[in-house]
Amino acid sequence: MPSRAWKWFIEYTHPTQAHMHGVDKYIYSGKTAYQQIEIIETDFFGRCLILDGKIQSSQFDEYIYHETLIHPAMALHPEPKKILVAGGGEGAVLREILKYHSVEKLVMVDIDEEAVGLCKLHLPQWSDGAFDNPKVKVLYMDARKFIEENKEKWDIIFLDLPEPLGDGPCYLLFTREFYKIVAERLKAGGHIALQADNLNPRLFHSHAAIYNTLRLHFNHVESYGAYIPSFDTKWGFIFASQSTSALDCNVKNIDDILEERKIGDLRFYDGLTHQALFSLPKDIRLLRSQDNRIIEDDNPLFSF
Amino acid sequence: MPSRAWKWFIEYTHPTQAHMHGVDKYIYSGKTAYQQIEIIETDFFGRCLILDGKIQSSQFDEYIYHETLIHPAMALHPEPKKILVAGGGEGAVLREILKYHSVEKLVMVDIDEEAVGLCKLHLPQWSDGAFDNPKVKVLYMDARKFIEENKEKWDIIFLDLPEPLGDGPCYLLFTREFYKIVAERLKAGGHIALQADNLNPRLFHSHAAIYNTLRLHFNHVESYGAYIPSFDTKWGFIFASQSTSALDCNVKNIDDILEERKIGDLRFYDGLTHQALFSLPKDIRLLRSQDNRIIEDDNPLFSF
Amino acid sequence: MPSRAWKWFIEYTHPTQAHMHGVDKYIYSGKTAYQQIEIIETDFFGRCLILDGKIQSSQFDEYIYHETLIHPAMALHPEPKKILVAGGGEGAVLREILKYHSVEKLVMVDIDEEAVGLCKLHLPQWSDGAFDNPKVKVLYMDARKFIEENKEKWDIIFLDLPEPLGDGPCYLLFTREFYKIVAERLKAGGHIALQADNLNPRLFHSHAAIYNTLRLHFNHVESYGAYIPSFDTKWGFIFASQSTSALDCNVKNIDDILEERKIGDLRFYDGLTHQALFSLPKDIRLLRSQDNRIIEDDNPLFSF
Amino acid sequence: MPSRAWKWFIEYTHPTQAHMHGVDKYIYSGKTAYQQIEIIETDFFGRCLILDGKIQSSQFDEYIYHETLIHPAMALHPEPKKILVAGGGEGAVLREILKYHSVEKLVMVDIDEEAVGLCKLHLPQWSDGAFDNPKVKVLYMDARKFIEENKEKWDIIFLDLPEPLGDGPCYLLFTREFYKIVAERLKAGGHIALQADNLNPRLFHSHAAIYNTLRLHFNHVESYGAYIPSFDTKWGFIFASQSTSALDCNVKNIDDILEERKIGDLRFYDGLTHQALFSLPKDIRLLRSQDNRIIEDDNPLFSF
Repeated sequence: MPSRAWKWFIEYTHPTQAHMHGVDKYIYSGKTAYQQIEIIETDFFGRCLILDGKIQSSQFDEYIYHETLIHPAMALHPEPKKILVAGGGEGAVLREILKYHSVEKLVMVDIDEEAVGLCKLHLPQWSDGAFDNPKVKVLYMDARKFIEENKEKWDIIFLDLPEPLGDGPCYLLFTREFYKIVAERLKAGGHIALQADNLNPRLFHSHAAIYNTLRLHFNHVESYGAYIPSFDTKWGFIFASQSTSALDCNVKNIDDILEERKIGDLRFYDGLTHQALFSLPKDIRLLRSQDNRIIEDDNPLFSF
Repeated sequence: MPSRAWKWFIEYTHPTQAHMHGVDKYIYSGKTAYQQIEIIETDFFGRCLILDGKIQSSQFDEYIYHETLIHPAMALHPEPKKILVAGGGEGAVLREILKYHSVEKLVMVDIDEEAVGLCKLHLPQWSDGAFDNPKVKVLYMDARKFIEENKEKWDIIFLDLPEPLGDGPCYLLFTREFYKIVAERLKAGGHIALQADNLNPRLFHSHAAIYNTLRLHFNHVESYGAYIPSFDTKWGFIFASQSTSALDCNVKNIDDILEERKIGDLRFYDGLTHQALFSLPKDIRLLRSQDNRIIEDDNPLFSF
Repeated sequence: MPSRAWKWFIEYTHPTQAHMHGVDKYIYSGKTAYQQIEIIETDFFGRCLILDGKIQSSQFDEYIYHETLIHPAMALHPEPKKILVAGGGEGAVLREILKYHSVEKLVMVDIDEEAVGLCKLHLPQWSDGAFDNPKVKVLYMDARKFIEENKEKWDIIFLDLPEPLGDGPCYLLFTREFYKIVAERLKAGGHIALQADNLNPRLFHSHAAIYNTLRLHFNHVESYGAYIPSFDTKWGFIFASQSTSALDCNVKNIDDILEERKIGDLRFYDGLTHQALFSLPKDIRLLRSQDNRIIEDDNPLFSF
Repeated sequence: MPSRAWKWFIEYTHPTQAHMHGVDKYIYSGKTAYQQIEIIETDFFGRCLILDGKIQSSQFDEYIYHETLIHPAMALHPEPKKILVAGGGEGAVLREILKYHSVEKLVMVDIDEEAVGLCKLHLPQWSDGAFDNPKVKVLYMDARKFIEENKEKWDIIFLDLPEPLGDGPCYLLFTREFYKIVAERLKAGGHIALQADNLNPRLFHSHAAIYNTLRLHFNHVESYGAYIPSFDTKWGFIFASQSTSALDCNVKNIDDILEERKIGDLRFYDGLTHQALFSLPKDIRLLRSQDNRIIEDDNPLFSF
């Protein structure tokens, strides 16, 4: 590593805030039909995937993001058999879901076939063979269209979508109209989990809006968050269900469930981590309670 | 706010990692006998204090750092009367400690009188009048020397020290020799709390070393952490005691204590936040267990 | 000097081009009635003046800019007595002009009294006492208004104005209407010189537009340029006259004039430098010939 | 072009000075046996070649660098037939040399075959077919070794070598021992031209050292310089000869030579540009006269 990098990826979160990542090597850089993709090699975080200028996951810490998104919802469901994933093109969500032997059918709907191909090629440890698992079916289409037209019901639906930017592919996957259909596509006892923007209290508006919008259609809507080093922030997630609360379980419950189902190799998630994820600090609870923005097809959410 | 800032403060945490903060105005920039000080005004975080190129606290989120450092130790002590603070020059730790009416004597030992003066002048809301409280006494001297020479015992000792840099003032305040004396200066039932470096798993070595070193002299040593937006990371703290564990209490315990003592205006800390702070994720627990570095006067710790 | 600066001034010349200057110390930072002013201390260029995010001059190389602006026009005039300067608030143009003993009256019109005061205070070597010279008179007012209302005629008029930005103070000092009056305010045999934007062929449009606009009112309009290190570019100037050409003289002419008038202490300008300044490369000559933009009060020029 | 780039190439010229280039696309990034190579696409300068973190040439302005290096020496030689080039891997020097019909033999010696291959593939307009010209022969070997062992004599020798960095391939191509042999390999009436580092007066030491070292072996050693936008500076070159001076000709001489030899399509170089190139400003002449550093094999030159 040189004493001073000369290739940098600079991620802006605000006109006056940015993070600089020294780049060892640009593995891939190009534009698909839907988004700008960069795959970079860094000394600090290893290989990273960047969509439209925003880091999606890094080799060093993708286990944090993906275990956080997947395991609370999986552990809290008594027997998850049919799972739907919207987005999730890197394949790491498939890898995590397949650790549960109860899973019989796992459908991933991602609009960007080229992006998925690049991830398979350049980030193989993300999916770790999951795309070849016979339980997995991948559909390359708009997730909104799929869920509108396909009336099938699921035990769990995961929404692993990039932040909606002005011209990005997924701003209609964060609206009340979409969440209404998502709720209708769950079996009894089913639930959803999704990534839900920044938990930095200075950039909190998007999380609160997603939270408020989900509350229109779910009885339990529960924010949780994990610090993700490559995002340089604590990132938000939401668990939503008609019948189950992620707050009702204690550390031992989760550890027992993981042990019983032989989910042994997790690096981040266990009972104590579950407790950390769902213990929202007082300031965030207050901010969330003060916001009442609802996201609609006609009034969508756009991140910076 | 201009569409593009031209004054930037760039904080490096590694040769290939840096955070850029757009600066509205440089309030102060100079060198004391001990350190380089900058006080800047930013659009994003308000006023910020920078020592030797590292953000110490910002107007927007100093409540997170200071409540996290102070309140667990204060709440867990049945009746904190005599408190010693090493460092803490901004005065915000005094402000938080003084919220407890049991406090009778509060001594702060900070080596850099000029720095404290600059904080009083330019960051008055940090101390919010605490320097004028008759219970408070401020000594401008080396905290190591003070604690070696002054045999007085304390209910709680807080160490609020900047990261030890190569030529910075405080690398001898992070060693086994120092912690041994600190332990001896506690009354029965007393304990300490300190800031303890980054909890980013990629930059974890300093926290683990501080933890291991404290374990030589304390029965209970408990890591905890909070995401601090202006640090762009989850930051580590440690609670250490011979007799008390921060893990033995539940959410309701803490909320009851705060209510009983009428500590009503906290923005970050309460029972649920306490639970979040002390619930360390699995990866950090593993990393900490794998490290056995001990810090000594002859083998000190230097941060990047 | 630390191995890695943490305070930076970043000057953008384009959305994808910027120069980073490590800052030792912010001397002054504030907003006058007309512009944002920063005075910084750098290791590389010494003290620098920044207006609205653009470096105006640095201690290390202000001699290049100021000698280039002033001496060709002074040397080419047989006996410059009455000189008018629009802008020029740092006072270095006064310093250079006063080296000619023929000067009897030197009026500077700068709109920003506060900025001039800051330069006197923080950049004293720029003016080097010139403001106290009895030949000098400084008026704090709009130079357009002054030149419209004051019918006096001058041997030389210098326009030392910052680049016109959208909300900056001087976009009406770069138009055909203004240049028409400027031409009328010259005595017979008089001429003007001005700074005239970037000579980077990739950013050449402003210089060409100023050149074309001046050609409406002057017989001789001659571009010249000097590489200014702190601007990171070759910067453009223009000499314009009804009767005199800067191209008619050779190296020896200029050296003889300077010697005869005892202008002995110049660091940059002499006969050979004059030849360098006015020898425009072929690509710039071509670009200039291909542009026909005229700047008007109703269609002003705005730099990036 | 996005309103804000997120991929940047940052070129440092000093610990406190850097230039930021927004990158559209990384075309190639890798390490040959000799150096780190990046080929990038930028909005501002088009495609750029970067060796060991330093821009070597850009699509937008490589004509300035290459015409400046090649044409003065070619025009000043009455009939250049045998030409040797050390370095020059992009092939643009070949393209320029081949414009002279007198050339019979053109040998290029570049140590890095892989780099030359990448330039042919990704920067084809640089060489514009020159590698296929039957007069051209390319040898992949150390130029020092070639010139030591091969006793052939040449009309002109061009040294187009990257700046010598600590571990770069070419620091022994800037020494008195090397220049002595180069001088011996010239035919009577022959001369050399080379790139010779930065003419920024704040970074002038390397140019002066090269100049002084050449003066040990050549009667005429003449600095010249051109502002190169993608280098953000005025760059230095040197012409050296036993019998010919580049200062003896006037504008018309050069224009006549170019016309007579039918060198019609140059974009930068002509008689007036020649005059600009060789008219060194007074400050640079002074700095050069004050420096007496000699570069030797045992005391080599290393750029920042």
